Amino acid sequence: MTRIAVDAMGGDDAPTAIVAGAVQAVRAGHDVVLVGDEARIRPLFPRRFEIPIVHTDDAIGMGDSPSSVRRREACSVRCVMQLVRDGEARAAVSCGSTGATLVAAVLDLGTLEGAERPAIATVMPRRDGGRVILLDAGANVDCRPELLACFAVLGVAYAEVSGVQRPRVGLLSNGTEEGKGNMQVRATLPLLRSHDLDVVGNVEPTGAMEGECDVLVCDGFVGNILLKAAEGAVTTVVSLLREEIRRRPSGVLGAFLLRGAFKRFRRRVEWDAHGGALLLGTRGVVVVGHGRANANAVAAAIAMAERNVSAGLVARMEERLSSGR
Amino acid sequence: MTRIAVDAMGGDDAPTAIVAGAVQAVRAGHDVVLVGDEARIRPLFPRRFEIPIVHTDDAIGMGDSPSSVRRREACSVRCVMQLVRDGEARAAVSCGSTGATLVAAVLDLGTLEGAERPAIATVMPRRDGGRVILLDAGANVDCRPELLACFAVLGVAYAEVSGVQRPRVGLLSNGTEEGKGNMQVRATLPLLRSHDLDVVGNVEPTGAMEGECDVLVCDGFVGNILLKAAEGAVTTVVSLLREEIRRRPSGVLGAFLLRGAFKRFRRRVEWDAHGGALLLGTRGVVVVGHGRANANAVAAAIAMAERNVSAGLVARMEERLSSGR
Repeated sequence: MTRIAVDAMGGDDAPTAIVAGAVQAVRAGHDVVLVGDEARIRPLFPRRFEIPIVHTDDAIGMGDSPSSVRRREACSVRCVMQLVRDGEARAAVSCGSTGATLVAAVLDLGTLEGAERPAIATVMPRRDGGRVILLDAGANVDCRPELLACFAVLGVAYAEVSGVQRPRVGLLSNGTEEGKGNMQVRATLPLLRSHDLDVVGNVEPTGAMEGECDVLVCDGFVGNILLKAAEGAVTTVVSLLREEIRRRPSGVLGAFLLRGAFKRFRRRVEWDAHGGALLLGTRGVVVVGHGRANANAVAAAIAMAERNVSAGLVARMEERLSSGR
Repeated sequence: MTRIAVDAMGGDDAPTAIVAGAVQAVRAGHDVVLVGDEARIRPLFPRRFEIPIVHTDDAIGMGDSPSSVRRREACSVRCVMQLVRDGEARAAVSCGSTGATLVAAVLDLGTLEGAERPAIATVMPRRDGGRVILLDAGANVDCRPELLACFAVLGVAYAEVSGVQRPRVGLLSNGTEEGKGNMQVRATLPLLRSHDLDVVGNVEPTGAMEGECDVLVCDGFVGNILLKAAEGAVTTVVSLLREEIRRRPSGVLGAFLLRGAFKRFRRRVEWDAHGGALLLGTRGVVVVGHGRANANAVAAAIAMAERNVSAGLVARMEERLSSGR
């Protein structure tokens, strides 16, 4: 049984949504320990239902700077990391500030040998029904080529434990031809090729979504822009489409007939329906849930943590980091 | 009357689509001169229909490197620029390689006083029905903060001649808070604020699409990634939605009832329905049409060139460049 430590105090709707998600996960068979203010958590349990709690008073708010996490050793997001470090849990889940989670993971878990900095890995849907792992999605805004190469290795380990055989690595660029890209990209591609990886070369965002690679490597600034551009475009398109549909009665009837398709569609494109982002490169499995996570999303994040523990993510990253270069 | 010089030989479907688009534009009242191989262009005219042709044998293919444009003074894309330089046309339109068009514009038109390098400006739809000008969309992959500030000035001039009063400038970043962004962004924001511009600060892609700014400034690498991510996401979403709709008969009927809405929607989100991208910072109006441009898109590019000449884009850029800082 894999015990998952969950930060009950992180997230826009914490602790309510977090506890509800944990309850859902426990009912589905997961083993969870909640970390946070016991007096606020306990009343949220259903009747005759118990989840172990590790009490702590302190919690990082969305207004607190990530660096303040350094001084607050007893805050909930640091406690979940300490539980993993001490072997009392096998994975950590937090839907609080990504920056705070990152700092806590580095401080209390530490990074793996050969991984200078952790990266945030996100999964994007592809047109061919597959998925592409994007990293870094926002942890490191300025990256040297060596760090990007390390992200590639970590991403490949993640893809492998997700069931992808010999994952193909793409380097995010503004054109596929060799020699395209900015200075960073042009310095990184030869370095990637010098590793024991299946490097397809430069990949554009459109190409990645069409299935050209399984792992897409970039710095955290560009990765974050890419994700937010995709999200913004989808939201814009859906909202303009909705406006056009409402203009005519035939549109309203058409939309009624299509409601099933729209629902299945939404499930397929929800970028974090699989639970959230994964922190790669730390000595333990860490899932960064969405700040707006509802109970379903929290339960999905817990399931995602469990999946990656069972699949041996950390050992695979260590193996890849020591042999992959 | 504004004469527009059109490169008949640039584009995937040149000269056929280009000539068809030029014919459409001339019928709509535009004054066009076609540049290219007369023997290939003339047979494409409808009966008893003439458009002036400036003949040249040479044309840049998509396989040619943009730098080869330097040696080929008589190629069609350079000829269109020379016509503008010599006052025989007021604007240039090419649907050929963006890199080649850029090199030709710099060589034969030159850049405006204070504009070190030209930028490519693209227009994106916003959720509020407005539009945001994104630049640089791909001309300069590595930019110093001074160059980004110059792009902001050029973008504001473009927004103003497009009818936006006191355009709001956003700096593309991965977070809105002051201090967010990579090194480049953090160095650029104070510089932008030191100019006579209405700077709203850091803007995320999602925020820009929601209407937080009228001009969105970034380097050409990130700008290109943003555009391709948005394009890829929309394509992915539309294709997944189509798949879901086809799964049930009610979906097919629903889609039939919605076909009008889908059509109007497509017109609204076509990122280049307005004609193409604009090269800013050169001594003349240059429209970079889409490589896959069909006749309608070519006609739209010609109309766009005409609009910006009439609105006094070049004079406005000069004014802004001399007074805006």
